[in-house]
Amino acid sequence: MSITKGEIRSGAYYDSVILMQLQRSLVGLEGVIDAGVIMGTAANKELLEQSDLLAPEIQEAGVDDMVIVIRAEDESTAQFALGEVDNLLAARRSGGIEQEYLPKSLETAFDMMPEAQWVLVSVPGRYAAGVARQALDLGRHVFLYSDNVTLMDELRLKDTAAEKGLLVMGPDCGTAIINGVGLGFANKVRRGPIGLVAGSGTGLQQVTVRIHQFGGGITHALGTGGRDLSDKVGAVTARQGLDLLSRDPETKVIVLVSKPPAKAVADELVQAARRVGKPVVVDFIGYATSMRKVDNVYFATSFDEAADLAVKLSAESAPNLAETELEEKPFAEGQRYLRGLFSGGTLAYETLLVLEEYLPAVYSNVPLEEEYRLADSLVSREHTIIDLGEDEFTVGRLHPMMDNDLRLRRLEMEAEDPQVAIILLDVVLGYGAHPDPASELVPGILAAQKQAKQAGRYLEMVAILSGTDEDPQNLNAQIEQFEAVGVKVFTSNDAAAIHVGKLANALDPDLPASKTEPLTEVDLKALTQPMAAANVGLESFTESLTEQGAKVIQVDWRPPASGDEKLMGILERMKNK
Amino acid sequence: MSITKGEIRSGAYYDSVILMQLQRSLVGLEGVIDAGVIMGTAANKELLEQSDLLAPEIQEAGVDDMVIVIRAEDESTAQFALGEVDNLLAARRSGGIEQEYLPKSLETAFDMMPEAQWVLVSVPGRYAAGVARQALDLGRHVFLYSDNVTLMDELRLKDTAAEKGLLVMGPDCGTAIINGVGLGFANKVRRGPIGLVAGSGTGLQQVTVRIHQFGGGITHALGTGGRDLSDKVGAVTARQGLDLLSRDPETKVIVLVSKPPAKAVADELVQAARRVGKPVVVDFIGYATSMRKVDNVYFATSFDEAADLAVKLSAESAPNLAETELEEKPFAEGQRYLRGLFSGGTLAYETLLVLEEYLPAVYSNVPLEEEYRLADSLVSREHTIIDLGEDEFTVGRLHPMMDNDLRLRRLEMEAEDPQVAIILLDVVLGYGAHPDPASELVPGILAAQKQAKQAGRYLEMVAILSGTDEDPQNLNAQIEQFEAVGVKVFTSNDAAAIHVGKLANALDPDLPASKTEPLTEVDLKALTQPMAAANVGLESFTESLTEQGAKVIQVDWRPPASGDEKLMGILERMKNK
Repeated sequence: MSITKGEIRSGAYYDSVILMQLQRSLVGLEGVIDAGVIMGTAANKELLEQSDLLAPEIQEAGVDDMVIVIRAEDESTAQFALGEVDNLLAARRSGGIEQEYLPKSLETAFDMMPEAQWVLVSVPGRYAAGVARQALDLGRHVFLYSDNVTLMDELRLKDTAAEKGLLVMGPDCGTAIINGVGLGFANKVRRGPIGLVAGSGTGLQQVTVRIHQFGGGITHALGTGGRDLSDKVGAVTARQGLDLLSRDPETKVIVLVSKPPAKAVADELVQAARRVGKPVVVDFIGYATSMRKVDNVYFATSFDEAADLAVKLSAESAPNLAETELEEKPFAEGQRYLRGLFSGGTLAYETLLVLEEYLPAVYSNVPLEEEYRLADSLVSREHTIIDLGEDEFTVGRLHPMMDNDLRLRRLEMEAEDPQVAIILLDVVLGYGAHPDPASELVPGILAAQKQAKQAGRYLEMVAILSGTDEDPQNLNAQIEQFEAVGVKVFTSNDAAAIHVGKLANALDPDLPASKTEPLTEVDLKALTQPMAAANVGLESFTESLTEQGAKVIQVDWRPPASGDEKLMGILERMKNK
Repeated sequence: MSITKGEIRSGAYYDSVILMQLQRSLVGLEGVIDAGVIMGTAANKELLEQSDLLAPEIQEAGVDDMVIVIRAEDESTAQFALGEVDNLLAARRSGGIEQEYLPKSLETAFDMMPEAQWVLVSVPGRYAAGVARQALDLGRHVFLYSDNVTLMDELRLKDTAAEKGLLVMGPDCGTAIINGVGLGFANKVRRGPIGLVAGSGTGLQQVTVRIHQFGGGITHALGTGGRDLSDKVGAVTARQGLDLLSRDPETKVIVLVSKPPAKAVADELVQAARRVGKPVVVDFIGYATSMRKVDNVYFATSFDEAADLAVKLSAESAPNLAETELEEKPFAEGQRYLRGLFSGGTLAYETLLVLEEYLPAVYSNVPLEEEYRLADSLVSREHTIIDLGEDEFTVGRLHPMMDNDLRLRRLEMEAEDPQVAIILLDVVLGYGAHPDPASELVPGILAAQKQAKQAGRYLEMVAILSGTDEDPQNLNAQIEQFEAVGVKVFTSNDAAAIHVGKLANALDPDLPASKTEPLTEVDLKALTQPMAAANVGLESFTESLTEQGAKVIQVDWRPPASGDEKLMGILERMKNK
């Protein structure tokens, strides 16, 4: 037999550490079987019910009420335990904080420690935005641990922060490592050349841990809060973080970790990552990608892979960011389009896929999306990739791998177009294919080059040679024939596609720059100055910063206009012990 | 000035090599500027128009008509050229085929070469299905190069083939390598331990070429035709190919290449690949995947990556297919479900992603898809992953990384459930987190184990320990505490998720087996017997097989009830020269 008794203390505020400690102390009393000390939310009451702790007298408790429930062997024990609550609260000692005077406000805290650039906020959600706003108004960066902060508050805070060149990491930001000091939940990891930005708390922790375990090290790890990468927030903090790490001379490799962001945000972040001039490992966990790498951006799909890639990249002396350095080419005004004339359908297909990363629209008779289907396969439009091996071209006609007649006619047409800058051809060798494709194609290429030159233009001719040294045509002999007339030859279809994609991208005057507003630059000192912070909320965070050798000042925060004066008085005395 | 003249030869059939050769001969005549020799399809007439070759007299030509057009300097030259057509056709020599007698039918061909297991078909599309059907009726495998074959014909042919244990590669199958001999378009590549199945012709060629260039070698490369992996065809040939290569003792690693298949087909093929007991590299080009590897299946996104992976895997002496060998565990009847109690949201998220590969449905308060959202976060259902760090659990309550109270209560509940077999916990160390989580969790784990044991059950307890050797809690000291009570500990979240996923999968009696009908097994001799084939269509394929040292017999095929007797007579004489 057991009896459950409860008590409501209206409008009493205690931080959750105190609630937990009180609950444990109550469970420790003789004759007490179980106890619950919580704020009276519906979810918490459900949890009490599940543990057989929902005493009838606490049904009425609201979100601002502290609820204490005891299950004991008999009624008198339960009553005794409830009667002990005040004593237990009074006996509770402030953990490891050794601070002579606890400032009541952020202003006072900064008077005491003007070098504090950071404010850690872990008060209950509905008060957290207010504290964060004060911090921003006082020109400080915010680490906003609190959850249950509204989206609207997040938007307002980040708007202000972006304007002022300040960071708001969070809300619901579990972790960060700034200049070697962990904020919130953070692991002790080796320092090193890898910087991280993450919209996911334990994701960021796990990647830093694995980097450490794989022998790498961390410059800074910036949390953004999970909602930062949503459509509405638009990754304000993530973009600030990426920008900071791109300017940080100690950071050689950047890792971006997040649950899958909104598509538009993901695209924008990847574009931003491509501009930072450092290798960036992107792990949008479980976000399906069809590419492994675009320029300096590497896609990972798991924490372990992200960590492994980052460590390997950071170990490279000079990561090779641009496989193809674009030389100056004597293009004429107006030359800008790519035309690819393929005999191999899948080579055309892979080329289209790669080009998606470099060009906004590529037309084709085998397009990736219907909107880019050529109205007439016989007439190119802007950037065009044609598969001349498609069924429409092969009725009563040899496949273009055997007969280049159609390609040669098309090549002549493309070369006449004054907007064409690059012509890409595939040449597939092997049994069954033309015995000497170069002998057919080279004269056509020469004629095209000549025609362009006479009109004052330059044509970049690129060929993918697919074949082996043992093929009847002999790969190297074919390559030599193409190279002899100035054709740039690739044996990798990917590499050829990347080359023409970059070149066409560089020639395109209309490519949109970043669609998002530029943000006010955050001073790099945010990261490089020794950590000094004010902590508002969980005292354990102050302890943790002190343990790590950082400067920290605990603010004696309490909710505005809070109730239960008696308990507040006890709390006050506890604090001053 | 030039003049264009044309001529229609109704109902005349010539293979496209002859059309091409005739066109070239005509262009070579003095005074002839350009010429076209084609079958009179709309597309071909458009192409003629583009080359300024659409003479008015050929407007009426239909798809069965051969069309000859000449653009010449003057009318008499054009007339002369047209008059030369018969002479040119007569003068054309059969290429490299040295065959005393050309059988008129497949039956006769097999009488002459009974060991021929294969029939190569490259006649025009509308005749191709008929030839392929004859081949199947005669018990032969078909390499169907022809394109423009209807879907309905493909379905009928593959139905028959699947029933008889025969292969139909194609239609529109550009390439294959069987037992070292290339069919259609194929590169000469080193022999070695890698077998391929591909729905894409040049994709298959490019991957075999890159494998060769990277130092690897090929057993067999089986084309399927591009439509094989569509929803309607259901990858009949690809599944046959996968099965053949899985049984082929020479093939150590399998590569599956295709343009992105229908989702259901892709899933089914990946499931089939997971059953073959060999490493399989899957490159559904540009098919976005969120995984790099599931069991023995590796996902590549480009030809180069697929080739590179295959070569590396084939160089391993004994590829490690099962990271976690499942030991026998003393589970009781009815124990089958996994329950994951997470403090880290992103760890929970990644776990859900990995579990998708092993379990059909995992419920959660943070599900990947809404249909798997728990009606009540406090009550698990079947396989369940709970994130106890979600906002709903953290109002007026410490985060579970600091306070395990909620997890301990939930652990007790889960352990009471007789259907629960596996309990997974994450333990996140570091600053800010609980100073000694093992001291809180281990007693709860012991109690759960005891309770299960008393009820005759066994609980598999698994923990992910995320932390470093430098963390305040010390990773190794924590691991020891968990391992001391029989908890299986992982430091990689992926690895833990794979372990529990495999275990839960093995315990599930209701998991659906393959959804598709089993196919009649194809005799491995299709691949291992020396190549001997009958070729119906392009003579160049016969030449190519001869060149490769294979046995081949050219069939003297012509369309049923074809017209133009005069030309046929000439053709006959050419053939007999």
